[in-house]
Amino acid sequence: MSMRNSLRAGLPAAAILAVAVLSPVAPAGESKGRPWTLEDILTVPEVKDIALSGDGKLAIYAVEIADLAADKPRSHIRILDIAATRQRTIVTVDSAKSLRRIPGTADWSALLDLGAGLQLYRITPGGMVQPLIVNPATVPVGKADMSFPIGGGVRPSSVGVLDYDWSPGGAWLWYSQLRALPNAPRVRFDAEVSALKSRRRSTIDVEIDYFLRGPDGKTTLMLSRPSKDRMATRGGGQILWRGDEVQFRVETPDGSEGGRFEMRAWNRLSGTIRTLGVEHNLETIALLRGPRGGELATSGLAKTLDLVETGPDGERHSYGAVAFTIGDPRAAAPQASRDGKKLVLGTRDLDAARYGLAVVSSDDVRRVESEHSLTRCAYDNALLFAVCVEEGIATPPRLVKIDLRDGRIFRLLSVSAEHDAIAPLTILPRVWTNRDGYEARGFVVLPRGYQKGKPYPAVIVTHGSDADDRFAAPGFQWNYPVQLLAERGYVVLLINDPSPLQSEELMAASKAWVRGSGPPDSETLQRLLWIEGVHIFEDAVDEMAIEGLVDRDRVGIAGYSRGSQMVNVAVTRSPLFRAASSGDGGYLEPAGYATAGSSYDAVYGGAPLSDAIISYRRFAPSLNANRVCAALLQQVASASPSQIELFEALRAAKAPTQISHYSGATAASDETHVFYRPSNRSLAMRENIAWFNYWLLDKNDTDGPFPKQAESWGKLARDRPDRCRAANGPG
Amino acid sequence: MSMRNSLRAGLPAAAILAVAVLSPVAPAGESKGRPWTLEDILTVPEVKDIALSGDGKLAIYAVEIADLAADKPRSHIRILDIAATRQRTIVTVDSAKSLRRIPGTADWSALLDLGAGLQLYRITPGGMVQPLIVNPATVPVGKADMSFPIGGGVRPSSVGVLDYDWSPGGAWLWYSQLRALPNAPRVRFDAEVSALKSRRRSTIDVEIDYFLRGPDGKTTLMLSRPSKDRMATRGGGQILWRGDEVQFRVETPDGSEGGRFEMRAWNRLSGTIRTLGVEHNLETIALLRGPRGGELATSGLAKTLDLVETGPDGERHSYGAVAFTIGDPRAAAPQASRDGKKLVLGTRDLDAARYGLAVVSSDDVRRVESEHSLTRCAYDNALLFAVCVEEGIATPPRLVKIDLRDGRIFRLLSVSAEHDAIAPLTILPRVWTNRDGYEARGFVVLPRGYQKGKPYPAVIVTHGSDADDRFAAPGFQWNYPVQLLAERGYVVLLINDPSPLQSEELMAASKAWVRGSGPPDSETLQRLLWIEGVHIFEDAVDEMAIEGLVDRDRVGIAGYSRGSQMVNVAVTRSPLFRAASSGDGGYLEPAGYATAGSSYDAVYGGAPLSDAIISYRRFAPSLNANRVCAALLQQVASASPSQIELFEALRAAKAPTQISHYSGATAASDETHVFYRPSNRSLAMRENIAWFNYWLLDKNDTDGPFPKQAESWGKLARDRPDRCRAANGPG
Repeated sequence: MSMRNSLRAGLPAAAILAVAVLSPVAPAGESKGRPWTLEDILTVPEVKDIALSGDGKLAIYAVEIADLAADKPRSHIRILDIAATRQRTIVTVDSAKSLRRIPGTADWSALLDLGAGLQLYRITPGGMVQPLIVNPATVPVGKADMSFPIGGGVRPSSVGVLDYDWSPGGAWLWYSQLRALPNAPRVRFDAEVSALKSRRRSTIDVEIDYFLRGPDGKTTLMLSRPSKDRMATRGGGQILWRGDEVQFRVETPDGSEGGRFEMRAWNRLSGTIRTLGVEHNLETIALLRGPRGGELATSGLAKTLDLVETGPDGERHSYGAVAFTIGDPRAAAPQASRDGKKLVLGTRDLDAARYGLAVVSSDDVRRVESEHSLTRCAYDNALLFAVCVEEGIATPPRLVKIDLRDGRIFRLLSVSAEHDAIAPLTILPRVWTNRDGYEARGFVVLPRGYQKGKPYPAVIVTHGSDADDRFAAPGFQWNYPVQLLAERGYVVLLINDPSPLQSEELMAASKAWVRGSGPPDSETLQRLLWIEGVHIFEDAVDEMAIEGLVDRDRVGIAGYSRGSQMVNVAVTRSPLFRAASSGDGGYLEPAGYATAGSSYDAVYGGAPLSDAIISYRRFAPSLNANRVCAALLQQVASASPSQIELFEALRAAKAPTQISHYSGATAASDETHVFYRPSNRSLAMRENIAWFNYWLLDKNDTDGPFPKQAESWGKLARDRPDRCRAANGPG
Repeated sequence: MSMRNSLRAGLPAAAILAVAVLSPVAPAGESKGRPWTLEDILTVPEVKDIALSGDGKLAIYAVEIADLAADKPRSHIRILDIAATRQRTIVTVDSAKSLRRIPGTADWSALLDLGAGLQLYRITPGGMVQPLIVNPATVPVGKADMSFPIGGGVRPSSVGVLDYDWSPGGAWLWYSQLRALPNAPRVRFDAEVSALKSRRRSTIDVEIDYFLRGPDGKTTLMLSRPSKDRMATRGGGQILWRGDEVQFRVETPDGSEGGRFEMRAWNRLSGTIRTLGVEHNLETIALLRGPRGGELATSGLAKTLDLVETGPDGERHSYGAVAFTIGDPRAAAPQASRDGKKLVLGTRDLDAARYGLAVVSSDDVRRVESEHSLTRCAYDNALLFAVCVEEGIATPPRLVKIDLRDGRIFRLLSVSAEHDAIAPLTILPRVWTNRDGYEARGFVVLPRGYQKGKPYPAVIVTHGSDADDRFAAPGFQWNYPVQLLAERGYVVLLINDPSPLQSEELMAASKAWVRGSGPPDSETLQRLLWIEGVHIFEDAVDEMAIEGLVDRDRVGIAGYSRGSQMVNVAVTRSPLFRAASSGDGGYLEPAGYATAGSSYDAVYGGAPLSDAIISYRRFAPSLNANRVCAALLQQVASASPSQIELFEALRAAKAPTQISHYSGATAASDETHVFYRPSNRSLAMRENIAWFNYWLLDKNDTDGPFPKQAESWGKLARDRPDRCRAANGPG
């Protein structure tokens, strides 16, 4: 644990790097514990939320763990006696979010799904759960028939209360509800019809009602927002209580890719509303209000990153150079002191991909760090101490108490004894620099029983910047069983995208992509955002092959979503890979223009059937299928036209390929982008092992999950075109 | 009425044509009756099925009429006393099909939906309805959530019994049922995932079970067919009873566009099955077994059309030249005598677009014709007489008795007194020949109160070959209120496609389109199947403008499905049209490749993103949007990506356009391709009138159905690009 009054940004990155390479974050002598099992990965606990009691003696937290028998994740609500380091589970529910102290009381509140949809409950220190706001008119959400596709990977479920917030004194309660719009058949015109272009299921539309309950118990409907307002559907809880005003952002789309937002203020006394200002291109929906009353953000590139607060009139205050970014949803949520003069922010370290805290007062920033990540935290009223989840890439999550004054960290309790029993794998942080000078960070997971000097088959796993210091995070490793691959003798390379913070041109490309238009031009964008990453992969493997770690002839790659883009581009542009697994992706394929048009415009310069066709034919993976020799598995939840477009193109080009669609719990619903059904996750992980074993090791798994389907792989291998004959592999 | 021992084919087409042009099929002096109303079009009766009693004294028929209050069509089952010319409605149901005599009894059987799904009932001469086979495990069908999309425009409904047939003696009953396959979630691979590419709703899959009930009441499950077998889902009733064998076709897809079919025979005694033969490219799913035991078909071009019977060993018998085609689903269904030696066929006259009958014995073909069409017929056992529905383009349907020996026709009863009360419009058959020598047939509907020499605004209505001698057929005129337009002062031109029977090259193009590959090459195909039709439109309007009938500056065009292809091509390739209405189409747009790939291959030479892109950019309507000045309204049931692609392209090109999506009865179901909901049909017809009034007559309808939407038309007119300024029209 460490605490610095000075910021770390002054240190050259290379210095830190050298230290990191020399000191593995997990002990190399894997003496104790048992090996990883599939069940261990499935049941990795995720603490979603944590809160303290008013007196600071108790903490309450919600931990999500897959229930294999019920075939769904469940959330366990636990109350922890901090001094006694004792905890108990008070209730297990289908879903839990927004655990909060009720100001002025000893109780907490939370949105829980006890079987009647998400509703607002009061939880007493004794563990009693009592309804606070129960809306019987629940609305089905998620990707399911006749549901509202709320976005953000929400599972098919029902919502009564969507979000809520207490006034600082606890006397006022703001909350929002979904309200289904009438489904009476009607004729739709023009833009409303265009919106049906990519419909995959029937949907319903909703409005979001904002309510305010006063100290007298009287409830007022403040306003109703349309479903197009993403602040209302996803960010509604970001309420600022300012004197008599309740302030919040609403989205008022104007067609721009970055969106248009208005800050509104609702007066509790007069019941009137006013608009405070308009913003575009919000980078986060969270309002990071600083100690000086302005908005906090970092600006600049990595080596000169500044923490800046911009006041309401545009005046900027610099807190000086920092070596972290803020506002990252993977880090702890921010918490301001009651007077607003102090703020604790969750941070992400630029070098170590580690989450920590920063305590910001009007003229000072102090950093709080553990040797691992602090991912979820709760604070006492005075911001004197915190109870946090501490976890690392090889360290299961545990609860710690942190003295925010001096940074000392006290270990409290483990979140999962089962995962403590696993012998940690050896996982080394690493930085790779490619031929063009771009660098990417990540980790090398050594195979169990690693012998130096022996080259191992390797699988790269990539997903944006998610290769970080968290414990087996499903949002990174998806259905790629990193730990089991390492148990089975693979070296696994967890490689992030090159960070845009390292250069002006990467930052410009990244912003152009979000904005939907250059500069830079589309060819440059393709190079900076995808091809440089492929060069990282190639050069990293070359480097590690020279080191004797990686067998260059047996290299696979896996990634979902953003990672699937990298996988699909990699197999069309590099002969390095013999096998690949591409998870629920499809972005970059021409068919995706229908759903992501303005973002494609930056990448390709226009629509596929316009003159931009030249750009698509140069870069879109499905239009370069005849350059692919790697065996590509697509595991998908959406079965989108883009995914099928790639599958069909690869089949037509006789590149070995398979697409596996994992369905929802019923035919009326879909699996989510990050799979939530343990049975699906289990099958998909086993399928990946069998796929890599077959195409990288020439091994027919006898315990593969789909033996009949696997029988077809031999034919795929034999049917490969002549151009791929030189490639090694089965057949 | 007329009867000929000799066939009419010998007469030159031109001679018949001359007669037709001179004699309007409806009287020109519109002295009696009332004008058409919207309700008249909505409630046009359609006789779907008819059967005689065993003694030939009674007829039973099902007539479908829109129930405006219930907002759905309903089928009235009526029993007619032929001698007394008296009828009564015995029951009104949601759906009725396959009315048949039960051999050896005085009763009928029918598939009826009395509210418990489609089931098999017995109907007594006294009008009692009794359940025969009721399958409680009904399966939801049609375009609706969690339903089986059975195809063929089936409305969202439930099916217990799908189809049935009696053995000639009535002792054996064959029937088929749908059986929903279990919906348990599972992982799908490859082709099964590809099949989800164009999914718009959740679906279920089924199998079709074939049962045989013997004289002892014992029922045997003969076999189960997969849902891919279109013979089973749509043509299962085509059973041949041959000795101890039950013969039927099954479809065993091999990927060819025309399909692959096997003739199977199931032995009633042994319970074994054998395959008799394999066929490809079936043109009709009906088995037209001729008097010589072979299959009947016509061959050759119009002027040398031959009726040919091909025996099981390939030997051909020619019955000589005929002037009609057979096997047309719009004509009466075929009926064989019990000994199979005589056959009555429904025919379509090549020249008059009129449906009649042909009595075929082993060495003779005799034609039975009325002055109008005979569209549905029932026969006595000996094929001595028939009771038919007779209707004409200006003549409401009525029941007639026909002596099949001498062809005499006796009028029995009207099907709809309400429609008899309408003063017929003057509708003239006409043939047009274009600049390239291709001819097309159709009708000219004169405006009410037509004054010779005065040019009228004109609307062309087109849908394949459906401009024929039937009464206001919804399958032709869709939501284009032909009669109301004529009442309101438009001349309406009902124009068919040029018949492929007129030339070898048109026939070759037509076959290539069905087959999915040329010759001819794609550019020739585009010319022959679409552009020649546009030339027909242009040259027809020129001709009629010269005659003083049509005001060349106020010409619109309307068509759905096949007609929408013609509309969309017409507005991109001809400056003639100021307004257009394109119904539930989208074929020819690049996005449609996903669902109709192999058929597109013939039209374009490949996929849109292949080198065939040149062909798409030359011909696809959405890629030629910047050539459009006509105001194009799309009325759609499916909101398919193709339809939206065209809408968005026209909007981008600033051509005035609107897309209106008509929804199903609930948000969980869709309207059908030919709208079935009377409320939708009514709104869509009114929308078309308002659209043509606005863009052709510069008239703002005060009684348009969507006044708020119509307010946006002024802006569409004003925003038109400069290239369209020369065009007349509002704004």
